[in-house]
Amino acid sequence: MNGPDSRVAALDGLLEEAGLDAVLATKDASIAYLSGFWGLQMERFFGVAVKRGGAGALIAPTLDRESANSAPTSLERLLYPAAISNGLPELIAFLGDAKRIGVEEDHLNFARSVALREAGYELVPATETIMHLRAAKDAEEVEAVRKACVHIEAAYDELWATLMPGMTEAEINARIAFAMMRRGAKHCEPHILFGTHSADSHGTPGERKLEVGDVVVADIAGQFGDGYWGDLTRCASAGPPSDWAQKAWAVVHEAYVDAVAATRLGNTTIDVDAAQRAIIEAHPEIGACLHGAGHAIGTEVHEPPFLIPNWDEPLREGMIFTVEPGIYNSDVGGMRLEDDVLVGPNGPVMLSTHPLELRIL
Amino acid sequence: MNGPDSRVAALDGLLEEAGLDAVLATKDASIAYLSGFWGLQMERFFGVAVKRGGAGALIAPTLDRESANSAPTSLERLLYPAAISNGLPELIAFLGDAKRIGVEEDHLNFARSVALREAGYELVPATETIMHLRAAKDAEEVEAVRKACVHIEAAYDELWATLMPGMTEAEINARIAFAMMRRGAKHCEPHILFGTHSADSHGTPGERKLEVGDVVVADIAGQFGDGYWGDLTRCASAGPPSDWAQKAWAVVHEAYVDAVAATRLGNTTIDVDAAQRAIIEAHPEIGACLHGAGHAIGTEVHEPPFLIPNWDEPLREGMIFTVEPGIYNSDVGGMRLEDDVLVGPNGPVMLSTHPLELRIL
Repeated sequence: MNGPDSRVAALDGLLEEAGLDAVLATKDASIAYLSGFWGLQMERFFGVAVKRGGAGALIAPTLDRESANSAPTSLERLLYPAAISNGLPELIAFLGDAKRIGVEEDHLNFARSVALREAGYELVPATETIMHLRAAKDAEEVEAVRKACVHIEAAYDELWATLMPGMTEAEINARIAFAMMRRGAKHCEPHILFGTHSADSHGTPGERKLEVGDVVVADIAGQFGDGYWGDLTRCASAGPPSDWAQKAWAVVHEAYVDAVAATRLGNTTIDVDAAQRAIIEAHPEIGACLHGAGHAIGTEVHEPPFLIPNWDEPLREGMIFTVEPGIYNSDVGGMRLEDDVLVGPNGPVMLSTHPLELRIL
Repeated sequence: MNGPDSRVAALDGLLEEAGLDAVLATKDASIAYLSGFWGLQMERFFGVAVKRGGAGALIAPTLDRESANSAPTSLERLLYPAAISNGLPELIAFLGDAKRIGVEEDHLNFARSVALREAGYELVPATETIMHLRAAKDAEEVEAVRKACVHIEAAYDELWATLMPGMTEAEINARIAFAMMRRGAKHCEPHILFGTHSADSHGTPGERKLEVGDVVVADIAGQFGDGYWGDLTRCASAGPPSDWAQKAWAVVHEAYVDAVAATRLGNTTIDVDAAQRAIIEAHPEIGACLHGAGHAIGTEVHEPPFLIPNWDEPLREGMIFTVEPGIYNSDVGGMRLEDDVLVGPNGPVMLSTHPLELRIL
């Protein structure tokens, strides 16, 4: 069996223990994992349904018939005309007698859940079941994330060669997105922010110009090849780093080293977060700890499990996480270091290798 | 009152008639509409809750405190630490005695809907209530869409000056994304596809090279300024157009003219779709009609109402739609024409004005 078909078989193998008659995957990334098909959902319904015993179907609008039909899967195709159907009648006809249906509870929307319940189905949270498979990456998936990281590292080389005082956030983010897309990125999310703006790690790049004395937080994520993401962050100082920048760098680097070391078998998601949190939170005079240690990464840039205090899950071999401690101070800016780390049999394996330094521009 | 605050007041004014104690907006675009705040949701909970009487709150993780606190809104800020809360306790504390809650049923996920129901709330679909406001754009919003279209038209000028046989889809899409981002695009979605690949309108740009004889379907969407999108499509032929390309162009152009003319007061969403569908479906020898006439556009690139046979809603003044008939043939490619059209008091108003021609490259 090919990759997607063997994953459908593996998922089927989990249904009995989970007490499910069938499972319905609706996230783009789960659909792609189980079928090799990447859709563009917008308002339309897409799904992969697998019944206990292994019968499965890919449900998509006829609009996507070319990609759906050429996907490397032996799933039945249920293509519906979106102009006259919302796809649920086709799903329901397929599900038939299967009544207890696992769904991705963090994705399926309320309207569709109500329609399925009213059609007589019992919906059961099954994100954990699906992510049990998706979370442990095989060798091919690990290489796909590593390749995405190589592309991102090339983008950093271009960033450091290009960025100088006077350039705007919009300009450098556009250039880096271009570099990523030319290297084959399907999606890319550069968040390169300057000075105090970098304290807002999800801020939108704007017309702010880089000034001497600014810190730079450069978060670059991109999805390549068959759909696997890499996600890295490095920091810089425009001109000699301030006292704050030097101290923030030292704290974040220490937190990074400890959190990477904690990304190993025998630990849980909480342990990795605790490793960075202990260090960041010991320095409130420098800034605040605003997020967890990171998140799993694969066919989604953020996917479960999450490295946060309220997510408790043992690490398993083949999981890949971003490890990304950060510290944030509204008056000065942010500092964050991020690499992608595989949970290997003998400890953490770095999938990204860009130099760890506070770059001086 | 400023824009977002006056919209919150207008939403409050709809709650009594809708029989709602409160409404919870969770889409990025609805949150931005009601608060001026654009978040980056990923796995985290964001919302704007408005109780009957007008009390309202913006709920977001502390990670987004900089953007949330500086947003142009007088909504109360409920910022929660995502490391230890999922945001729902903060929402529930705010909702208090309000028990019948309108939600965006096409966005709120199943897990959050279950948690809110278990906390004693009755959830009622309210996308229609929120979209009743969002759908009718004011003069400022119309200008924002028009400005987005101007940027996209500049990207087309660059496209036609750049694209030539031998260039790959990945290369031209990267260049156009770069052109858009340099002009300030926050997000952009070029889908410029060649030859038979253009029959898959949601296909992913790849390593295919443009060859003489290929058709080109160039769909370019981008979000600019305060978050408003434009979305256009033009087509080209590499070298002299084939018989198929000339016929497909003529059919799509005719469908476009009729559908634009139908985008006026007195008509419904179905009427606009019927205008293009009658023409496209009369030519099965050229290709298939795979989608509706278009969709509303504003702070989302696709938003309700949709111009499809199973969506029946009267057009109102201030609505803005993409009008985008297309025809698709797996053996040759696609052809589609798309502009953004305002429903004006005296008929359709074109917000985009790029020349309507089958471009020859």
